[in-house]
Amino acid sequence: MNLYAQMTPEELQITLRQLKEEHRGYVAKGLSLNMARGKPSAQQLDLSMPLLDAASAASDLHALDGTDCRNYGVMDGIPEAKELMAQIMDDVPERVCVFGNSSLNIMYDLITHGMLYGFLGNAPWKDAGTVKWICPVPGYDRHFAILEQMGIQMIPVPLNPDGPDMDQVEQLAADPAVKGIWCVPQYSNPSGITYSPEVVARLAAMGAADDFRIFWDNAYCVHHLSEESAQSVHVADIAEACAQAGHPHRYFKFASTSKITFPGAGIAAVAASCEAIAQIKKRVGIQTVGYDKINQLRHVRFLKDLEGVKDHMAKHAAIMKPKFDLVERKLSQGLGANLAPDAQGDQVLGLAGWTRPQGGYFVSFDGMPHTASRTVALAKEAGVVMTGAGATWPYKQDPLDSNIRIAPSLPPLEELDQALDVFVCCVKIAAIEALLEQ
Amino acid sequence: MNLYAQMTPEELQITLRQLKEEHRGYVAKGLSLNMARGKPSAQQLDLSMPLLDAASAASDLHALDGTDCRNYGVMDGIPEAKELMAQIMDDVPERVCVFGNSSLNIMYDLITHGMLYGFLGNAPWKDAGTVKWICPVPGYDRHFAILEQMGIQMIPVPLNPDGPDMDQVEQLAADPAVKGIWCVPQYSNPSGITYSPEVVARLAAMGAADDFRIFWDNAYCVHHLSEESAQSVHVADIAEACAQAGHPHRYFKFASTSKITFPGAGIAAVAASCEAIAQIKKRVGIQTVGYDKINQLRHVRFLKDLEGVKDHMAKHAAIMKPKFDLVERKLSQGLGANLAPDAQGDQVLGLAGWTRPQGGYFVSFDGMPHTASRTVALAKEAGVVMTGAGATWPYKQDPLDSNIRIAPSLPPLEELDQALDVFVCCVKIAAIEALLEQ
Repeated sequence: MNLYAQMTPEELQITLRQLKEEHRGYVAKGLSLNMARGKPSAQQLDLSMPLLDAASAASDLHALDGTDCRNYGVMDGIPEAKELMAQIMDDVPERVCVFGNSSLNIMYDLITHGMLYGFLGNAPWKDAGTVKWICPVPGYDRHFAILEQMGIQMIPVPLNPDGPDMDQVEQLAADPAVKGIWCVPQYSNPSGITYSPEVVARLAAMGAADDFRIFWDNAYCVHHLSEESAQSVHVADIAEACAQAGHPHRYFKFASTSKITFPGAGIAAVAASCEAIAQIKKRVGIQTVGYDKINQLRHVRFLKDLEGVKDHMAKHAAIMKPKFDLVERKLSQGLGANLAPDAQGDQVLGLAGWTRPQGGYFVSFDGMPHTASRTVALAKEAGVVMTGAGATWPYKQDPLDSNIRIAPSLPPLEELDQALDVFVCCVKIAAIEALLEQ
Repeated sequence: MNLYAQMTPEELQITLRQLKEEHRGYVAKGLSLNMARGKPSAQQLDLSMPLLDAASAASDLHALDGTDCRNYGVMDGIPEAKELMAQIMDDVPERVCVFGNSSLNIMYDLITHGMLYGFLGNAPWKDAGTVKWICPVPGYDRHFAILEQMGIQMIPVPLNPDGPDMDQVEQLAADPAVKGIWCVPQYSNPSGITYSPEVVARLAAMGAADDFRIFWDNAYCVHHLSEESAQSVHVADIAEACAQAGHPHRYFKFASTSKITFPGAGIAAVAASCEAIAQIKKRVGIQTVGYDKINQLRHVRFLKDLEGVKDHMAKHAAIMKPKFDLVERKLSQGLGANLAPDAQGDQVLGLAGWTRPQGGYFVSFDGMPHTASRTVALAKEAGVVMTGAGATWPYKQDPLDSNIRIAPSLPPLEELDQALDVFVCCVKIAAIEALLEQ
């Protein structure tokens, strides 16, 4: 399958020289391109500018319940913001808290909560000896960084096209020291897969510690790339699954408007069982007098409801889809057929596989073993910043050094086109170098 | 001095009957008045409405350094927001982080930081056995609530007119288990006192654990009640004092615009030594991708600089001063001369003392021993909500049951007038009841 692997060393050297010549050309251009982070483009941000006028000097800033959103109070979110976020999260307002601008911060605070106070009568994790966590890979580097900072031991398990390898997850969760699992259940970061209903049911039903928690970071729940996927892709509700399985407190659901409106100025929410929400409110009521209610009001007035969100997300999709299409086209043209499980194609260079997501912000790219770091370094030399190799694994240690997260959202199409040319060239150089070293 | 104490039981009973008659009159009115929390009035909030138009749909939302404030990034605040908050905090932008809307949340996170990670190479407090904290009283209930939640042992020390009793503080700080002290150093909550330069110097210089931290919550640093106090009252800089004393990492300074612009939608900041700021950034960089930079931009564009803040605060003072004057007038008229150390006057009922602050949000009221709870309960019966008795002490345990925090900012003047009539009546009833029980 790998055409390079069938070449002689001499043929490889000739090809390598040509590729290095090409690479030098990119370096000489002094490019400054970025495919590193899942940042919306300026064009996407422009979609939400009317949000800012939804709370102007001339506006009435009272919430529906009469709260003056300018003043202190209402620590868990104004009612209409809870309603909006509940709709986005498949939940009910009573089980939702709307906090500040960062769902990551809510997750961080909840893991801190587990460490210092414990959940619903269970001992604080700081007193529980070693605490372990299940980390589907490839996964989200910021999730892993939280656990690493807190000294929680991360155990990678493979993320399959239908979700984490549940045989391994069930086996691990039986250990009472295992207290949680990271899940980005729809359009997973970075592979773009969505958990199947069976996986959701097994996560909810499996044996696990009483204070085992599924951190359900549904960051891309409305982030479809096409009308077709908007119609067909929707992960099963973990709350309902956990309730049905008799583990009603096992999950925390997270969502935010960071990639709906403004990443720097959105609103974020958590949903959980009523008992868990009560405990969260008790802690957060000590932590702060309240979050930015004017911004909550802005969001409700601008987005209105789930239908409003869907209409708005279709505008994002119209900007994002051509970028993902371009990634697919450039990788296919440059590297031959996609080796990912669901890929199809005839022409084969066979160096790599990558995902073709229907939503979310990323393409997960797998090169030949021992080439990811080199590829990213070569790209950087040529002015193209990628997410660091290894970032998709706990402790940044990708044992195969093969996975790279591609984030095509930020650059305009013409820049993305150029960045992908550079990337393809670097993938090829790293592959040949790896073959020559064998 | 206490006229009631010189009455016969029969005289007291007659007076009590008259007062209870008056109280029943208030109850019958079905009042709903609030002197409980330090919330700005609607009139004050209106001062900041133009802030909202400082970031409109038509605005350029780039920071001075080119950052698109709508997008992810810049975890520690945009440069112009650091500059503004540094001016407010007597500091330099390099030693300032601007975060979300709540300085209380920054304090909470920093104590959590001490618990889980420790400061600058010292052991995490969770591994240090009992952790103790110095709490000047009367103090701020939300400060105490954080420590109580974390299981940190609170030790009250008297707050004198020039700051905490430093002989006691120095003795306590010598215990290596004592890791911190709460300070509201200017217009203290609730007594309104400002720390003297000598107290600031002693706090900075005293012997204490390497990871002892002064939590310098300078919440009222620009919150003067008159032009005269704006000219004359300014607490000494704890950063400079600590640096000079050879303990450069001993302090964290906090400030926010909660009572400058909008309590529900302001910006908050922390200042500390460069090494401490570096450690904070490292932790917060894991906790969140960043705070609301659009709101930071709004604030800078509206307030501009320290001069702009001062002009704006003069408008607040014009609204606040008549309320504090009314408190003083009503209490003096109703209860006779003020027994507080700095009070003057001829007419003496002698039941109580209270402070006459030059800034901040509160009057600290001391009734006869064993009367505060009863006074607050009587006021509540008559529709006047006060801060709970005991709130100004750790664990809500005021050993004398005498201190009450009066917060006159929220109600309009006519409501405040009525609420103070009720309050005075309740103070008298509680006093007589206490005397009759002796």
